[in-house]
Amino acid sequence: MNDITMKLNADNLIKMALQEDISSEDVTTNAVMRNRKQGEVQLICKQDGIIAGLGVFERVFKLLDETTEVEFYAEDGDEVKNKQLLGVIRGDIRVLLSGERTALNYLQRMSGIATYTHQIAELLKETKIKLLDTRKTTPNMRIFEKYAVKVGGGYNHRYNLSDGILLKDNHIGAAGSVKKAVEMAKEYAPFVRKIEIETENLEMVKEAVEAGADIIMLDNMTPEVMKEAVKLIDGRAETECSGNVTKENIERLVEVGVDYISSGALTHSSPILDLSLKNLHEV
Amino acid sequence: MNDITMKLNADNLIKMALQEDISSEDVTTNAVMRNRKQGEVQLICKQDGIIAGLGVFERVFKLLDETTEVEFYAEDGDEVKNKQLLGVIRGDIRVLLSGERTALNYLQRMSGIATYTHQIAELLKETKIKLLDTRKTTPNMRIFEKYAVKVGGGYNHRYNLSDGILLKDNHIGAAGSVKKAVEMAKEYAPFVRKIEIETENLEMVKEAVEAGADIIMLDNMTPEVMKEAVKLIDGRAETECSGNVTKENIERLVEVGVDYISSGALTHSSPILDLSLKNLHEV
Amino acid sequence: MNDITMKLNADNLIKMALQEDISSEDVTTNAVMRNRKQGEVQLICKQDGIIAGLGVFERVFKLLDETTEVEFYAEDGDEVKNKQLLGVIRGDIRVLLSGERTALNYLQRMSGIATYTHQIAELLKETKIKLLDTRKTTPNMRIFEKYAVKVGGGYNHRYNLSDGILLKDNHIGAAGSVKKAVEMAKEYAPFVRKIEIETENLEMVKEAVEAGADIIMLDNMTPEVMKEAVKLIDGRAETECSGNVTKENIERLVEVGVDYISSGALTHSSPILDLSLKNLHEV
Amino acid sequence: MNDITMKLNADNLIKMALQEDISSEDVTTNAVMRNRKQGEVQLICKQDGIIAGLGVFERVFKLLDETTEVEFYAEDGDEVKNKQLLGVIRGDIRVLLSGERTALNYLQRMSGIATYTHQIAELLKETKIKLLDTRKTTPNMRIFEKYAVKVGGGYNHRYNLSDGILLKDNHIGAAGSVKKAVEMAKEYAPFVRKIEIETENLEMVKEAVEAGADIIMLDNMTPEVMKEAVKLIDGRAETECSGNVTKENIERLVEVGVDYISSGALTHSSPILDLSLKNLHEV
Amino acid sequence: MNDITMKLNADNLIKMALQEDISSEDVTTNAVMRNRKQGEVQLICKQDGIIAGLGVFERVFKLLDETTEVEFYAEDGDEVKNKQLLGVIRGDIRVLLSGERTALNYLQRMSGIATYTHQIAELLKETKIKLLDTRKTTPNMRIFEKYAVKVGGGYNHRYNLSDGILLKDNHIGAAGSVKKAVEMAKEYAPFVRKIEIETENLEMVKEAVEAGADIIMLDNMTPEVMKEAVKLIDGRAETECSGNVTKENIERLVEVGVDYISSGALTHSSPILDLSLKNLHEV
Amino acid sequence: MNDITMKLNADNLIKMALQEDISSEDVTTNAVMRNRKQGEVQLICKQDGIIAGLGVFERVFKLLDETTEVEFYAEDGDEVKNKQLLGVIRGDIRVLLSGERTALNYLQRMSGIATYTHQIAELLKETKIKLLDTRKTTPNMRIFEKYAVKVGGGYNHRYNLSDGILLKDNHIGAAGSVKKAVEMAKEYAPFVRKIEIETENLEMVKEAVEAGADIIMLDNMTPEVMKEAVKLIDGRAETECSGNVTKENIERLVEVGVDYISSGALTHSSPILDLSLKNLHEV
Repeated sequence: MNDITMKLNADNLIKMALQEDISSEDVTTNAVMRNRKQGEVQLICKQDGIIAGLGVFERVFKLLDETTEVEFYAEDGDEVKNKQLLGVIRGDIRVLLSGERTALNYLQRMSGIATYTHQIAELLKETKIKLLDTRKTTPNMRIFEKYAVKVGGGYNHRYNLSDGILLKDNHIGAAGSVKKAVEMAKEYAPFVRKIEIETENLEMVKEAVEAGADIIMLDNMTPEVMKEAVKLIDGRAETECSGNVTKENIERLVEVGVDYISSGALTHSSPILDLSLKNLHEV
Repeated sequence: MNDITMKLNADNLIKMALQEDISSEDVTTNAVMRNRKQGEVQLICKQDGIIAGLGVFERVFKLLDETTEVEFYAEDGDEVKNKQLLGVIRGDIRVLLSGERTALNYLQRMSGIATYTHQIAELLKETKIKLLDTRKTTPNMRIFEKYAVKVGGGYNHRYNLSDGILLKDNHIGAAGSVKKAVEMAKEYAPFVRKIEIETENLEMVKEAVEAGADIIMLDNMTPEVMKEAVKLIDGRAETECSGNVTKENIERLVEVGVDYISSGALTHSSPILDLSLKNLHEV
Repeated sequence: MNDITMKLNADNLIKMALQEDISSEDVTTNAVMRNRKQGEVQLICKQDGIIAGLGVFERVFKLLDETTEVEFYAEDGDEVKNKQLLGVIRGDIRVLLSGERTALNYLQRMSGIATYTHQIAELLKETKIKLLDTRKTTPNMRIFEKYAVKVGGGYNHRYNLSDGILLKDNHIGAAGSVKKAVEMAKEYAPFVRKIEIETENLEMVKEAVEAGADIIMLDNMTPEVMKEAVKLIDGRAETECSGNVTKENIERLVEVGVDYISSGALTHSSPILDLSLKNLHEV
Repeated sequence: MNDITMKLNADNLIKMALQEDISSEDVTTNAVMRNRKQGEVQLICKQDGIIAGLGVFERVFKLLDETTEVEFYAEDGDEVKNKQLLGVIRGDIRVLLSGERTALNYLQRMSGIATYTHQIAELLKETKIKLLDTRKTTPNMRIFEKYAVKVGGGYNHRYNLSDGILLKDNHIGAAGSVKKAVEMAKEYAPFVRKIEIETENLEMVKEAVEAGADIIMLDNMTPEVMKEAVKLIDGRAETECSGNVTKENIERLVEVGVDYISSGALTHSSPILDLSLKNLHEV
Repeated sequence: MNDITMKLNADNLIKMALQEDISSEDVTTNAVMRNRKQGEVQLICKQDGIIAGLGVFERVFKLLDETTEVEFYAEDGDEVKNKQLLGVIRGDIRVLLSGERTALNYLQRMSGIATYTHQIAELLKETKIKLLDTRKTTPNMRIFEKYAVKVGGGYNHRYNLSDGILLKDNHIGAAGSVKKAVEMAKEYAPFVRKIEIETENLEMVKEAVEAGADIIMLDNMTPEVMKEAVKLIDGRAETECSGNVTKENIERLVEVGVDYISSGALTHSSPILDLSLKNLHEV
Repeated sequence: MNDITMKLNADNLIKMALQEDISSEDVTTNAVMRNRKQGEVQLICKQDGIIAGLGVFERVFKLLDETTEVEFYAEDGDEVKNKQLLGVIRGDIRVLLSGERTALNYLQRMSGIATYTHQIAELLKETKIKLLDTRKTTPNMRIFEKYAVKVGGGYNHRYNLSDGILLKDNHIGAAGSVKKAVEMAKEYAPFVRKIEIETENLEMVKEAVEAGADIIMLDNMTPEVMKEAVKLIDGRAETECSGNVTKENIERLVEVGVDYISSGALTHSSPILDLSLKNLHEV
């Protein structure tokens, strides 16, 4: 993760996570270790997968003590193996103990998302289809989770409600028609936005193309209808399909011909990647 | 979730989650709906499970507009079914659209945790064993996730590093011995804390009992060794066992005789419960 | 300004502005008025212009005391005249006195921007050219200033560095070529972003079109060169021109044929619109 | 600007301004520059004026990356010329690109204020009159704008409602009389405050002097009446005159004999000073 | 305490104090009371003294639940007696229990300060001397403690380093002389500030008067020397004396003839006034 | 104080305290010292006592300028004497002047608490009784005050409402009985909590023991009744007595036989320890 992003948009969240875990002090550690003592601990992989979030992991310890040294033997995006040594952290043992859980909570979750994303992306690798994430992220984790999706080989859909236009049925209803909705969006939104519109049948697809939408989302259609939609659109707009896409069911969408497939599961239901800190010892 | 907890410790996080999703404005909604228009939308269950987080779900909309009305037909802890109508939300349609994703992100995750916890707790219901969570929660989600565990029928382990003592091998090493570690913890920590100690073999278990530990955690032992440990402890301390416990592998621990089993999977790897807002219409 | 935007992204700034002006207490008012006393004051226009920011003005008083009542006789975007009565504010006189300066500081600046924007937009009204703002806003005022531009008849360029792509010479240099830069941007950025590229001569314009840029900015070109650029582009991308555009010098750009003209002066150099609170009296 | 002031009262605002401009990440820069690359850029003046805010400008880059080096060839208060090289900034090119706009937004505005203040102060330089600012500052910019006024040769009026007493007609009305208002203020306010009172005619001026006001503001009086007021006060209080004072109309006040002239225009209507970052290149 | 002051400058601190006491939830209360239950509790005085901070006390409960009703039978500044019923609080019993400690912590401390201040002020009541507080307040309690001093009959010295000038020996040393220090302060500070200077002997007093200081502090002088100093000053400046002033030793300063006596003990060493919540019962 | 605790839970409060004292700038210092000048000042003890808070004292200056150097000749917990030199602080003289008051406000208060605690703890040193603090701390000072109690030889009771169970009469009433209350607490609270219950007579004590309470508080009982209670409990629970315990009246409780005595006076009514910064000079 870029340093500027980290400082401006991640540090505050990481610090809050540390305060969530240490609301007054780490009582256990402070009870038995009154003074600084230099130590070292290993970051070990306990499951095969894709690693993501090493910078965030490091930042947890640095925020507790900027003199902590972290050395990694892998980088974000690497395939890692069970038992692999991923890195070594050196510093005040109290910092290593107090930061361990928060650092792993971030790294395990981010790596879990990257791993799951990678697995689905692999299923699409012979095609031109790009795999997209959604806004179905864990609250206050979006900056980390969207990054993990990219690390895993996916692409980002809009970041949030402020940086993308997606006209759904209620927006269209409020505007009066697909055409009117697209016009109002073009008039109102910053002009660098693409206009995406959600369609549920071929009639809407047709209207959307004619209204000049930049992206057309095919929602809740059968693969067959989607194919027809793609044909109808004929390159005049980009196409996205969505709807409970998982590793198990993405197969059926591969032949449809859309440009993008989006999947909420990437961020809301991927299991973590198991990682652990081992062999803490004085140095 | 208790109103005071909500105000003091959840509201700020919920508001940050909303700002994460709306960093300037909801461009799509504002493009097509310039004025307040009263509407209604239904909260529908799309999967069987245990619902948890309805108060948080409601709070998302109330924080956007306190006049929003939410009526629920279920309460936290209820078993809910696919297609069941769980509630109705009424208010400014722009509020319903802008808050939808954040409200569902919380509710789906919390209900996912409650559902998964419930499934494991069910496997223990003929025993006296209590199922515990851990500190392996998603950063900045602990207040919500620990609550969801309780809703699902689990129990909470310590909340964080400040409110519980858990002496691990490095703490013991720093103290010099199990006995010394327990003594130092009793001397240092607020006296209302129980002292828990992590043990890896029978020798340590014995020392721990003799040192007067309140709770003994049996870590990475085979079920057989654990049984011996429980016999050795003989009621002189509470017992907890832990280590990659999931729905699939908890069986082997049931007969061991411990008082508590803790599982990180409850909060770090449960999939969401699928829920959705449907049938938004003006009223 | 939309209520949700106000709550999530303006309220905090408004409150900070009030704290900037009242770091402990309003000593003067508190010295002479120990108790609540209901009063009324008029908002009077002292200069012709376009009014913008009435919602923010109202919010200042509501944040001090939510029972304050504000009645407006104009709405954002209206042309207002010197001496015109724009509204009446009723509430605790102490609130009216303590909030006056902050409320006017917002309203005067926002209306100043709307007025200046309107004056330039009028010069373009016989054309199809849209007038854009820039990121040259006052720090911590962007949400208010970009809104004021829209009220004045302008359009918003990207909101910030996170929601728009604008490849400048250094980005192109880092990428290696215009083509490579556009490719890298498409690969990296959320797919809902349009790609804009800044060009300084016809060669770059040509490359940009061929690379598939969505928007081409013509920077520091003479009107003649710009005309050629527009011809060269021939509708294959949207076109924007920029560079110290003011009310006095925009004329020369009207015939160039670009789609958009952007002007930093809208937000960084427009004078305020003079407004005042008058005739405060008890009721 | 003093380092302590910067840390305690400016840093937070500067960081918020950066977050306003980078709500998730600088997409363009991150798309094309994945790694740190050292570079250098020049700060060039594009208009004659007074420079103010170099410390703030530097701080923007330091907050993004503390290793950024900034070397200035001018200091706050210097007269600077079009095309003059004011400084060089060296650091990670990504930092230079991401911080550029925010740094310039501060520097241009502060220098604009210093320049305009200097122009008016020059008109008073043969007199003993001191030029004062007001509370008509841009919200959340006061610490920067009041500093810029001093740099330009002006003096600061009270900082905010908490650190100065200014009794206006409504305060006098609430107190019952000028005499009573001054008494109440002396009784209530911290004793280190001077008491200033706003007067609109000679009768009030007389009362104010007799009540022991420290400063008397002559508001909305003709120059002739002001002269009489000054004679009447006869050194028993300091005198200030105010009311839409600009570069164009201050002439008429020079002969009046007051100690201070205050002008809201210094902070609310001065145009920016044009500055730019040029010649970014690797080093 | 004024409502605006409360909202802008006290609410945040009060909320932080509540979060300090409830970092996740009130476990005891939530364990036994799952639902709202309306109750009532009495605020009882357990010691004679001056009550101060009732508004803050009320605000604690209102911030937890705005529907809480508080009725007082006394107001700030009243002399209250042991066993006196001061008020009744009605609301959700959980709110009454969770807020009790924080509300009393504020009220007891503020009333303790008011009581102690009142005791000293009484010793000065036959004189014209005003009793001042200092900046020796408890961190993050100044807004409450300075208010309590006023309630007890004292007066406020400057609020903080930003709103008052007090030239001490090191400032004078840096400036070069008393005269130069006063000049530099007048040149630099907002013109509404009075200039106070700390003197340690008659020579410095003389210089200070001649330099035009507004207030002269007599520091660490014997009563005799102070008397001479007052004579020397002869009304040309206000006079303040300070130095470990307590209830027990203020006597010796009464005859000195200074205008003000300041005492740090008011805020740093007054014991609390004992108060308690009693007879909580359902209604 | 541990570095991690300082960073996560003290720094923010210390910074707020500095901002409370410097809301815009230190006007006096900035008026006479425009540039950095290196200096040194001594920390001198002016009263015998126990020193506590040296780390916080140092942190105040480090937060203003991290290059400030602090050298101590004593450490927290040491008995210090009037006139003793405790340390030397070296750095920018402006930092030394601007931070002085806040640094001393913390150190004096913390040392006052440690001193008073030590005095009472000395009275118990021939016994096995441990002296406990309470939640009667100054708002937003708990992290500092509880630490000072430990430095003075006391022990900490629960930190706040979230990390300890204390069932009072209203909780028991809500639960229905002592037995039921203990059961509900055990069921609800994190299992690492000890259950404490407040009793007012021997009947309740008996019930509490039988219900399995871990700690029994004897509240408002005469020493005689307490003795009976201790006999009745007979080691089956820990015992605590409380109620307006001070240095003057603790004698009567020594023979009672309880394990713990708690005293609110430690934190709410101890006077400060007088300390000062002296002999500031350039180096």
